[in-house]
Amino acid sequence: MTVDRSNPLVLRQAIRAGAWTGPTAGLAPGYLQCNLAVLPLQHAEVFEAYCRANPAVCPIVAVSAPGDPRLPRLGEDLDVRTDLPSYTVFRDGEPAGTTDNATGLWRDDLVAFAFGCSFSFEDALRTEGVALRYLDRGDREAIYLSSIQTEPVDSFAAPLIVSMRPLQPADAIKAIAATARYPEVHGAPVHIGKPEMIGVDLDEPYDTIGRTCILDDELPVFWACGVTPQLAIAHAKPDFAITHTSAHMLVTDLRLADLRTG
Amino acid sequence: MTVDRSNPLVLRQAIRAGAWTGPTAGLAPGYLQCNLAVLPLQHAEVFEAYCRANPAVCPIVAVSAPGDPRLPRLGEDLDVRTDLPSYTVFRDGEPAGTTDNATGLWRDDLVAFAFGCSFSFEDALRTEGVALRYLDRGDREAIYLSSIQTEPVDSFAAPLIVSMRPLQPADAIKAIAATARYPEVHGAPVHIGKPEMIGVDLDEPYDTIGRTCILDDELPVFWACGVTPQLAIAHAKPDFAITHTSAHMLVTDLRLADLRTG
Repeated sequence: MTVDRSNPLVLRQAIRAGAWTGPTAGLAPGYLQCNLAVLPLQHAEVFEAYCRANPAVCPIVAVSAPGDPRLPRLGEDLDVRTDLPSYTVFRDGEPAGTTDNATGLWRDDLVAFAFGCSFSFEDALRTEGVALRYLDRGDREAIYLSSIQTEPVDSFAAPLIVSMRPLQPADAIKAIAATARYPEVHGAPVHIGKPEMIGVDLDEPYDTIGRTCILDDELPVFWACGVTPQLAIAHAKPDFAITHTSAHMLVTDLRLADLRTG
Repeated sequence: MTVDRSNPLVLRQAIRAGAWTGPTAGLAPGYLQCNLAVLPLQHAEVFEAYCRANPAVCPIVAVSAPGDPRLPRLGEDLDVRTDLPSYTVFRDGEPAGTTDNATGLWRDDLVAFAFGCSFSFEDALRTEGVALRYLDRGDREAIYLSSIQTEPVDSFAAPLIVSMRPLQPADAIKAIAATARYPEVHGAPVHIGKPEMIGVDLDEPYDTIGRTCILDDELPVFWACGVTPQLAIAHAKPDFAITHTSAHMLVTDLRLADLRTG
């Protein structure tokens, strides 16, 4: 089956039908992709307070009513139980497997949160004239555990996970000015140039994506990463939670251009 | 005579009366200070084209009618012949002395250009929460000749002069996002972090202001500097020109907050 990769609605339908099960990077350019976190109502209020306290880390774009799998701001037909290519299930804060369909896991007390994902802004950066040479080299962003602590709320607490992109200085400046205008997609970077100041060893990425080459004329630029709330969930240990699986995001109908402020 | 240093009108009156003859750094916080360039009409059109081609270098805030020393956008009473504490006179592109009053030099064919000066934005940066530790240490920005060439127009051409401020990475990010919103005050920086990429040796400042200490946890951040058009004038060699003398700026009634875009 051939899928129109530029149309978010067609992509969601393909994902829902099981015809697209892979990562969503590069799909539906110009449209917002979202991180997903689903929690029982009894934890949702505190989790939302944690997100509001850390808006650059978990920029809430939409929240569902309890038990309601729809997020109409993001797509009229959208169903968070079926529209992501892969879900990770957490039980008592521990990852307990993945699934490509969360319908059987759904409960009347579940609340879904969607956060803007930086997958989206590489497209916005190109639009602003930023050269993304690491993509041209076949690399992608690298993910690191930093020594920066997010603002804890109750039992939700986590060190900040950061995504790093190597950019030439003039492009880094353009990227900073540009992403500052997208607060719903993590906003401006949290750090530039001196990884040791935020506890990062560039040779020790957090996950299996691996290292990204940094050339001599480039600076490492670090943004808050949407993987962070998964660590906060692991720390708070709610009995049950569902998140997107890394790199398998919720593709939405929201146009990035409409999220640009100023 | 005691001068109210916070009020731009009172300051201009004091400067006009000869009661303030020093640099204007730190005066009238919250108000725009401007670089000045005055040229005969026969050169003014090409010079204006040069400025328009290099908006980050020479961000034109006001232009006078030929022979008219007023710039009403910047202050109702403002007179560019008397309202700067020091002027530098250029003859055939060569500096030919300074004066604290340009009334005797005024001609019916002179056109005055005012450009936003980065003196103004240190105040804006503080407002945006940027820590300016170099000021607290008693340093100020340093000025360098870079290897970046401005866009030449006819005989107006110059390498870019840059001003450098050392900032901690998180403050550099805030400063980039903030100054990007002030296009009339040079806008975002032109470079960060790797001075050798723009031909700068940090130990070799351009003028007598001298070096500025950069701590290990700071990055050098470089903005286009309003001294650059003086080099373009020196290159084009108009028979006559007047500019502000370094650090002795035109204090205006324009509020920085009103110049913020987005």
